[in-house]
Amino acid sequence: MQDTKSQHKFKIVTGGVTTPKHKFKIVTGGVTTPKGFRANGVHCGIKASKKRDLALIYSIAPAVAAGAFTTNRFTSSSVKVSKEHLNSSFAQAIIVNSGNANCGIGIVGYKDAELMAELTGGALGTSSRAVLVASTGVIGERLPIGKIREAIRGLIRGLGRGKRGLFADAIMTTDTKKKESCVRMRLAQRKVAIGAATKGAGMIYPNLKVKRQATTLTFITTDASITKELLERALDEAVNQSFNMISVDGDMSTNDMVLIIANGLAGNKMVYEDGPDFERFKEGLNYVTRDLAKKIVKDGEGATKFIEVRVRGARTVSRAKVVARKISTSNLVKTCVYGNDPNWGRVMAAAGASGVDFSPDKVDIYLGKAKVLSNGIRARRIDKRKLEGIFKKDLISVTVDLKSGPERATAWTCDLSKKYVEINSEYMT
Amino acid sequence: MQDTKSQHKFKIVTGGVTTPKHKFKIVTGGVTTPKGFRANGVHCGIKASKKRDLALIYSIAPAVAAGAFTTNRFTSSSVKVSKEHLNSSFAQAIIVNSGNANCGIGIVGYKDAELMAELTGGALGTSSRAVLVASTGVIGERLPIGKIREAIRGLIRGLGRGKRGLFADAIMTTDTKKKESCVRMRLAQRKVAIGAATKGAGMIYPNLKVKRQATTLTFITTDASITKELLERALDEAVNQSFNMISVDGDMSTNDMVLIIANGLAGNKMVYEDGPDFERFKEGLNYVTRDLAKKIVKDGEGATKFIEVRVRGARTVSRAKVVARKISTSNLVKTCVYGNDPNWGRVMAAAGASGVDFSPDKVDIYLGKAKVLSNGIRARRIDKRKLEGIFKKDLISVTVDLKSGPERATAWTCDLSKKYVEINSEYMT
Repeated sequence: MQDTKSQHKFKIVTGGVTTPKHKFKIVTGGVTTPKGFRANGVHCGIKASKKRDLALIYSIAPAVAAGAFTTNRFTSSSVKVSKEHLNSSFAQAIIVNSGNANCGIGIVGYKDAELMAELTGGALGTSSRAVLVASTGVIGERLPIGKIREAIRGLIRGLGRGKRGLFADAIMTTDTKKKESCVRMRLAQRKVAIGAATKGAGMIYPNLKVKRQATTLTFITTDASITKELLERALDEAVNQSFNMISVDGDMSTNDMVLIIANGLAGNKMVYEDGPDFERFKEGLNYVTRDLAKKIVKDGEGATKFIEVRVRGARTVSRAKVVARKISTSNLVKTCVYGNDPNWGRVMAAAGASGVDFSPDKVDIYLGKAKVLSNGIRARRIDKRKLEGIFKKDLISVTVDLKSGPERATAWTCDLSKKYVEINSEYMT
Repeated sequence: MQDTKSQHKFKIVTGGVTTPKHKFKIVTGGVTTPKGFRANGVHCGIKASKKRDLALIYSIAPAVAAGAFTTNRFTSSSVKVSKEHLNSSFAQAIIVNSGNANCGIGIVGYKDAELMAELTGGALGTSSRAVLVASTGVIGERLPIGKIREAIRGLIRGLGRGKRGLFADAIMTTDTKKKESCVRMRLAQRKVAIGAATKGAGMIYPNLKVKRQATTLTFITTDASITKELLERALDEAVNQSFNMISVDGDMSTNDMVLIIANGLAGNKMVYEDGPDFERFKEGLNYVTRDLAKKIVKDGEGATKFIEVRVRGARTVSRAKVVARKISTSNLVKTCVYGNDPNWGRVMAAAGASGVDFSPDKVDIYLGKAKVLSNGIRARRIDKRKLEGIFKKDLISVTVDLKSGPERATAWTCDLSKKYVEINSEYMT
């Protein structure tokens, strides 16, 4: 699918409100764009292929950090270790392996995750508790910790500003392309950058909670000077309007994790309270997370199309979200999009199955800009050719107007293709 | 897939408890096996193909009836009309069309459904309010009521005891085979039969409520003499342990409906209170509905395998159901079964994503009889070949033991194949 970055340059939607102008600049970059960050990615042998499977981000200065983690009852040992380490006074590195989830292994897996942090901290000359750990891959296999141990020195030796691409590459599993995003803004006269990389193509239906527990892995770096508390608040808002609104297959992972690390090297006046600086920072962070979330969906396993589901006229935001997410996880909606078949009755059935109470005889539904349902009844003039034209595009929007309140939400998903089934019936073997 | 009826002959599971012996006899039969019922099925032109699309059940004597309907906020006009007609003093016929859902059409659709009842009642010489109406097919298209009008006389003329197969055929959409079930039992020395037919292959994730609102259509006839109130109670229990525990694609229809009609012609002493007769009747009805529910899943769109998901050790039945249904709707679980890939980590992730609170470090998971997770940790001895052998079978069972309570539930689903995607990307066009 084509990159649609150019679109976002002209119209950024924040919290459902279109802002004609935004106060940040979208730039090419990633986790090493903010000052003081280095990264690398290597192959250590976790994956059977020769692909990179071990990645590292390092901040030359101690940083504050915040995380949002999966709400799955089963969680990876990496999730457990990172949550604990976020309680320490500072963070300085993030070590990530792909190809193995380190989940369902018990205490041995926990010790392996701790050992990854120790080995990394030791070689970098920082506390092991300043190292955050993330994993993605198959569940129920022990990490080849020996191979990781052997590779860590080389991984660190190769750290560099130019290696953000290697980092973004090494965290991938079934992803077909690297996913990075970066913005620059000014906070109190100082230039600040937010850079990020993400991975995820399947088992994507995150429900991340800050301080609790998401397999999408996202790593965000910034040189902003900001308090931990505000960083957490900003991350919470950001994940709720981005990762928590996407679905590839409706399956929530045991390993989902979004980490943000802020080293203050931009030298801006510390953001410590609500105000214009915090708003500007959040606006930039919201963009970066939403941009990455959409990139995950576009690179969803087997995806040929990108679907934006907009729900408006809801009594509450949470109701709008429930309806939007129900439509975005409907296999029947996703397969008809794959088949260029504008079968809007499936959108209607999915909305009605959401469990949200609304008046069916008020509801309007649009495919693109074409109204197909008006007050719960098939629209009078439905141009089937026009609808088919809309469904043949790479980017499809579906809008449901409940007409029972002021609130709205947007969810993103991809189509369900034969390729998806192929990828997922042959993943482990 | 092969019919597994022979299995049920030896082990019937009712409400989670295995009863070594049951008090009914499984016989070959369907909706015309109970005394006084006639049926027919014809092609009237709703479907573009030459397949049958209009079906009728008629009881020679007035009967009591009960229904369970979809809980989708959007409902077919047929659902609305049948719910109203169930309030009348008796029922005598069920008219069913396939190929068109009669949904999303507004008042016109409602009038068409009423007209179907009127035309049928008129030609049969009974009240239109004694006629129940059901529809299944594409949403958002008006019924070709003229074709139905022309076909009704011929449909009635052809009514017969030998036509249960034509009825079962005419209610099908993407189904590949007819689905019928029948049992005989004795109630107070009299022979009573329960016969039924069902359809459904896609958009299968019913959540049926008695007196409220389920696209699986199921029609059950019985010659038992039983009060309407007990018929409703029996139906409620029956749908909750059968149709409400199956999923093909996780999409709930706007048209799901289960109707039962009891004409009393067996001449048994009226069942009007709790007691051995009512228990026996329920046992038979539970079997018939579960048998049909499983047949739907086995004939699920694109299905190559049947999956039974058992959850035990839950604190409450409803928690057990939520976990079982979450696993049974996981695309990742369903695709790995399709691919003969015993990727049990996906079962674990789905269980953990259910939102049910349990202790992950207590949980055991089995594929077939092979334990793969023990107290939240990968089992020590996992024979990968053995697991692959289990996954190559047509019938696969997955058991999750939460070990936190006495309750259990079983859900049924099928695998997710490329064929499913093919069928559903080309449904309307």
